[in-house]
Amino acid sequence: MKKQNKEKTGLWLIGARGGVASTAILGLSALQAGKTDGTGLVTENYDFKDVSSVFPAWSEFFVGGCEIRTGSIYDTVATLGGIHPAIRSDLIQACKRDLAAIDSRLVPGTIRGSGKCIASLADMDLPTEDAPAETVARLESQMKAFVDQNGLSSLIVVNVSSTEPVNAAVQSILEKGGNDGKKLNSLWDKALNKKCSQSSESSLPASSLYGYAAMKNGWTFINFTPSTGVPIPLGDLWSEQYGSAYMGFDGKTGETLMKSVLAPMFRNRNFNVMSWVGHNIFGNLDAVVLDDPANKSAKVASKDRLLGEILGYRPQTLVTIERINSLGDWKTAWDHIHFQGFLGTPMALQFTWEGCDSILAAPLVLDLSRLALTARRRGQTGRLDFLSSFFKSPQGASTHDFARQYLALYDWVMGAENGK
Amino acid sequence: MKKQNKEKTGLWLIGARGGVASTAILGLSALQAGKTDGTGLVTENYDFKDVSSVFPAWSEFFVGGCEIRTGSIYDTVATLGGIHPAIRSDLIQACKRDLAAIDSRLVPGTIRGSGKCIASLADMDLPTEDAPAETVARLESQMKAFVDQNGLSSLIVVNVSSTEPVNAAVQSILEKGGNDGKKLNSLWDKALNKKCSQSSESSLPASSLYGYAAMKNGWTFINFTPSTGVPIPLGDLWSEQYGSAYMGFDGKTGETLMKSVLAPMFRNRNFNVMSWVGHNIFGNLDAVVLDDPANKSAKVASKDRLLGEILGYRPQTLVTIERINSLGDWKTAWDHIHFQGFLGTPMALQFTWEGCDSILAAPLVLDLSRLALTARRRGQTGRLDFLSSFFKSPQGASTHDFARQYLALYDWVMGAENGK
Amino acid sequence: MKKQNKEKTGLWLIGARGGVASTAILGLSALQAGKTDGTGLVTENYDFKDVSSVFPAWSEFFVGGCEIRTGSIYDTVATLGGIHPAIRSDLIQACKRDLAAIDSRLVPGTIRGSGKCIASLADMDLPTEDAPAETVARLESQMKAFVDQNGLSSLIVVNVSSTEPVNAAVQSILEKGGNDGKKLNSLWDKALNKKCSQSSESSLPASSLYGYAAMKNGWTFINFTPSTGVPIPLGDLWSEQYGSAYMGFDGKTGETLMKSVLAPMFRNRNFNVMSWVGHNIFGNLDAVVLDDPANKSAKVASKDRLLGEILGYRPQTLVTIERINSLGDWKTAWDHIHFQGFLGTPMALQFTWEGCDSILAAPLVLDLSRLALTARRRGQTGRLDFLSSFFKSPQGASTHDFARQYLALYDWVMGAENGK
Amino acid sequence: MKKQNKEKTGLWLIGARGGVASTAILGLSALQAGKTDGTGLVTENYDFKDVSSVFPAWSEFFVGGCEIRTGSIYDTVATLGGIHPAIRSDLIQACKRDLAAIDSRLVPGTIRGSGKCIASLADMDLPTEDAPAETVARLESQMKAFVDQNGLSSLIVVNVSSTEPVNAAVQSILEKGGNDGKKLNSLWDKALNKKCSQSSESSLPASSLYGYAAMKNGWTFINFTPSTGVPIPLGDLWSEQYGSAYMGFDGKTGETLMKSVLAPMFRNRNFNVMSWVGHNIFGNLDAVVLDDPANKSAKVASKDRLLGEILGYRPQTLVTIERINSLGDWKTAWDHIHFQGFLGTPMALQFTWEGCDSILAAPLVLDLSRLALTARRRGQTGRLDFLSSFFKSPQGASTHDFARQYLALYDWVMGAENGK
Repeated sequence: MKKQNKEKTGLWLIGARGGVASTAILGLSALQAGKTDGTGLVTENYDFKDVSSVFPAWSEFFVGGCEIRTGSIYDTVATLGGIHPAIRSDLIQACKRDLAAIDSRLVPGTIRGSGKCIASLADMDLPTEDAPAETVARLESQMKAFVDQNGLSSLIVVNVSSTEPVNAAVQSILEKGGNDGKKLNSLWDKALNKKCSQSSESSLPASSLYGYAAMKNGWTFINFTPSTGVPIPLGDLWSEQYGSAYMGFDGKTGETLMKSVLAPMFRNRNFNVMSWVGHNIFGNLDAVVLDDPANKSAKVASKDRLLGEILGYRPQTLVTIERINSLGDWKTAWDHIHFQGFLGTPMALQFTWEGCDSILAAPLVLDLSRLALTARRRGQTGRLDFLSSFFKSPQGASTHDFARQYLALYDWVMGAENGK
Repeated sequence: MKKQNKEKTGLWLIGARGGVASTAILGLSALQAGKTDGTGLVTENYDFKDVSSVFPAWSEFFVGGCEIRTGSIYDTVATLGGIHPAIRSDLIQACKRDLAAIDSRLVPGTIRGSGKCIASLADMDLPTEDAPAETVARLESQMKAFVDQNGLSSLIVVNVSSTEPVNAAVQSILEKGGNDGKKLNSLWDKALNKKCSQSSESSLPASSLYGYAAMKNGWTFINFTPSTGVPIPLGDLWSEQYGSAYMGFDGKTGETLMKSVLAPMFRNRNFNVMSWVGHNIFGNLDAVVLDDPANKSAKVASKDRLLGEILGYRPQTLVTIERINSLGDWKTAWDHIHFQGFLGTPMALQFTWEGCDSILAAPLVLDLSRLALTARRRGQTGRLDFLSSFFKSPQGASTHDFARQYLALYDWVMGAENGK
Repeated sequence: MKKQNKEKTGLWLIGARGGVASTAILGLSALQAGKTDGTGLVTENYDFKDVSSVFPAWSEFFVGGCEIRTGSIYDTVATLGGIHPAIRSDLIQACKRDLAAIDSRLVPGTIRGSGKCIASLADMDLPTEDAPAETVARLESQMKAFVDQNGLSSLIVVNVSSTEPVNAAVQSILEKGGNDGKKLNSLWDKALNKKCSQSSESSLPASSLYGYAAMKNGWTFINFTPSTGVPIPLGDLWSEQYGSAYMGFDGKTGETLMKSVLAPMFRNRNFNVMSWVGHNIFGNLDAVVLDDPANKSAKVASKDRLLGEILGYRPQTLVTIERINSLGDWKTAWDHIHFQGFLGTPMALQFTWEGCDSILAAPLVLDLSRLALTARRRGQTGRLDFLSSFFKSPQGASTHDFARQYLALYDWVMGAENGK
Repeated sequence: MKKQNKEKTGLWLIGARGGVASTAILGLSALQAGKTDGTGLVTENYDFKDVSSVFPAWSEFFVGGCEIRTGSIYDTVATLGGIHPAIRSDLIQACKRDLAAIDSRLVPGTIRGSGKCIASLADMDLPTEDAPAETVARLESQMKAFVDQNGLSSLIVVNVSSTEPVNAAVQSILEKGGNDGKKLNSLWDKALNKKCSQSSESSLPASSLYGYAAMKNGWTFINFTPSTGVPIPLGDLWSEQYGSAYMGFDGKTGETLMKSVLAPMFRNRNFNVMSWVGHNIFGNLDAVVLDDPANKSAKVASKDRLLGEILGYRPQTLVTIERINSLGDWKTAWDHIHFQGFLGTPMALQFTWEGCDSILAAPLVLDLSRLALTARRRGQTGRLDFLSSFFKSPQGASTHDFARQYLALYDWVMGAENGK
């Protein structure tokens, strides 16, 4: 056991020059060098301070990943926040060499099924492949090379790339395959080997190809985005076949986190939520991608879903996400909740959330990697349900109530400590 | 058991013409007549809809109480909300006869230790008594007469009167008595029999006298205010001696409810709360009383306490409650939370809560009465810890986290159902 | 002069059972009966209190109008605000007979060029006419009958109906006609006599037909909506030909009023407005109509226009208007203004406006009628520029700065007093 | 005239290491070096862009001043904003040498009548003087030396030090002296020569001594604070005697600026403002001083005064200013305005202002200096009424309406251009 602890585990970030990944990379570098503290990290919170030995140390992670854009991790973090810098420049300078080293390791990703908007941003020289299967083969060989060359014990692959449009190819596999593993496998193989260019809308999407490449090697795949990735029956199937683990969808960082915290109060106090309006404005690269209606609809659905599930009925809801350039990474959300109390009296709660998107998301990426590695060391495979509090649309979720989700995490960690 | 169910239980409201009591009275009347639904009532929420038989029916309650002011329950609810009515006038008209009948049953209360501001509002002809013991004797006889004349099985006494100043007499008993029951009894008796006029600041306070009068008769005392009432060692002592039950302090209705819902999120996500500012404005009679600094300090302490206990450290906090006449019962709170996330980046959450104070509090008074009666029927005496989610400063609380408090309630109710 | 003052003037409301018209009708009735004061009326403000004799008395107005929907003025005002009533019910009861009398006088309007959404709401039996000219003839005869039967001195026609889609027929006349009066007249006549059903999109729109019917009789036409109505060259032409007066567009009541008040501050202090986001939510009938994208775009353009004109440059702007049923007439707007100050430092202003749409608009309709009648008595015809402060997109406006617009009104009123 | 333009004018800042002065010094340095643009400067706004030659160039100013604290201008600007930096560090680095040069020129000020809180912050070695007259003599000699040694044509003295408590000595002179110049002079001389230590509460206050020292030399005194400074009859008297000029009180930068912009709208639209609540939180050195109730009351009065004067009646108002350390210079204000519209319907406007105090104030200090110098070159002495838009409590103000105040400035500038 001890020996294994000394080995490093790979953290493979998809979209590694994006805001979330770049901030996570900077943060990990700063943590490893003792230049920042645990603020914002769930695994370093007050509840876990006496059981921290249950988690791998930050020094045990070694970062690699892929991109479709040129630029650099350094540039991303240095301009994060736009006109209002989000990260202290001295911290960035102190980690500059680490960022450059990681940048030099990044390899080309894929834009299959990512939509026109993402494709238009791809200025790296991406290999042309005739079928998704060829792309998977390339992705696998990239990851394996990374593991081998760096002597890593295993890999945790985290998708933090921009949101893809809803994908019809995977939907069709799920509908036709049902829960029949054999059928699913054969449908998947067929789609994988179907010739189609990387710009084709009928291709299997990048997020699913990354996930498949990771899982068929027994690694862990975390989908931090609302993109298709690895849906449940496929994830369970591959976990069983390959001994891998997975979890998603869509990191719960800001407005939706607030919803999952506040909605249970409205339910418990039996307030009748008549309407819940949420307007989000921000100006980073994600906003550019979400400006494309195809990409946006996947996101809005993910933000909107949980209310009805928590409350037990569906109030009128409205969620918008709009690009306002001057805000950069500072996502500002205004929510207006109109509810009835006793005797039918209408009342209102409004909130404004002013958070830096990448700063909120990046520590969760690190927490997820740390917890996923903890699970691996405990021999846990399959869907990592105990991570539900980290996601807007947790796969296999029995509840969207943040407090209950958090209790599940707490119990799992404490169980892990007790060797359970 | 069935027979007992058919008997009625008394609900004795202290401050019965105040906004909270009057709204509770109207609401109970409307519930009994099927003129309103369960919105705003915890015991009627989604979680409990299949176990509603565990609770007494609303028809099993019979209301009485005391006051120190003239006026009427009808006038209170008709003008609730000031310029912006809080309750539909047709509902008030439909219950007008009930309100008048209850009004006619109200008896004079006491203003002992309530401070100059409350004393100045007392325009009923209140009996003059030379010592607190005489006041207790009168209060007891009033309650007993109510029980006897109406054939009630027992009594639940709820304090919903205005906030008293902090009381030195009770503080002194607690300090000197420690946990020594005998000593506490003797100190209490001495204070009870010490001659002092009702306007004396050294008198035992009204809230404690009401509580004592209730508990020594084996009844339940609920302190919905931050006033002294029945502090823990006395409450436990009297519960044991007289087989009664009790719980307090200070109903958790608006801004503090929000704090107990949001602060656990900041703790769990390991955000560093640097400051939490809460400004409350409203214009009802409570606001008049809280305009007196002596009364206000008790309230602010109650609103401010829980943050440090949830977070595990004390951020800078600021809580104000100010009287703005035009708002009437519509309490508007603005909270500004300044916190650090990952890499030390500062972010902010602001919320504005626009709620009608009495409409938020009244259903909790009914829930508490219903749950207290449920406990009585299950033979439970002493401190009713499972009610902590209803209070800003729950007596004996092990947590201020609303979600955990609510789970305790949920488990208790489900246990009650299972005959546990 | 005195004799004329004793005569009554007609106030002809288009969309008379809508929220704005119904509230204006109730308000006028209450003012005439001395049951409400001048709050919310510009002509009764502090600046004009010593010159009130310059304005006609409220008793001098006599209301009529047209509609396309059944229902009643009484129902509109009684349910205004939805779950949160906007008008005291005793005031509505006190004026109930007046409202019924006016309701009985209402005649059918027209839905020409009003779009599918408005057409779907039209449940009155509207006459079928083969060409706009026939419709104009009917509208004229309705108005003339109203004037004759009630011995009115003249008529002020105010359009407060729902927003129409942008109209191509009028656009084409303006483009082809330029400033050539003869050509404009002939193009107008041609369009007027072109056979087209009332549901045809190529028809001249209702708002323009109402305006023409009013102006060709020498009356005053006020367009309180962003609908096409009477554009400038036509308005000037008809004013000259028929001695009539006109003004529009789109009453400035809430969020846009705020913009025209705040933007000059940003300009004067030389703050660089980087972005101005305004989200509007409400749930009245207007919201239903604006849910149709065709109708909405006309409205949003009107709300968005003035910022660039005040600031001297165009910041990024975003304006949404969304239907949230529970809010009824209570329009809630959240605006977020992101601006740079000295040394490029970014700062922000947010505001939330919670106003009742009809309550804000109705007094302006009465003010406009009163001021238009004042102008008539002073012999003023043509475009009533001094009314620009009342409009989001004032016709012929030289400024959108509310303070400057108001000064123009102030000077005009004072000039009127001095016999100028 | 041309020759004079080439000479430099002194800008003497009182409290030169405070946030406002330090930011103004940095800003002037950056302007002189062409490293920042005119954003935030009134004299560089859109209205004045074609008449900029009427103003002196930024290069014509030469900065000096006094302090009572050690530290440095550089440290002040580098830490401005606390955890959230307010100024780009590259700009600060670029001007570092200039700041050091000015720092080296600063001389000791005085803390006479500044209250205990300010006295406790004074860590410079301040001369001990037995009477205010001695202090004035020292201040004069410091200013004169600055003028002589640097060959300056004249001096503009701006008070940007912390707010003093209300001063009884000056109040008494004003009450006894009335408008009798002779009497005022003799009372002033008496107070000036009365022996009293610098810590005495009965001393003439620092702000008045600075003002007197400036004005008796024919220079201009601008009081950017609510401190006593030079009240009207004294200012007019000294202007006449010495040919000097003056203006105050209290720079209008944030929440009060908003009030003077919004209140005229409420007046013009005849809304009945029932209450206006303003809560301000911030954490810079000013906040430390305002934490002392003696200093705070002067400030709150200045923020609260104008509403009644604009509206024509006094609504209920509440203004708080509280110190929240984490906010640093970022002053956050929440205002809640509760008003009645037509038919008595209550509505509300809330706004949150998030501005950096020094960044808002500093450009106004530069504008005032520039405009004061423009006035001097035009030969204007006495009270500079045209500057009223810059002040919360403008001396001799006929209006608090920002738009009207700004028009007065605009007209004055345009008149200046036309040689009027």
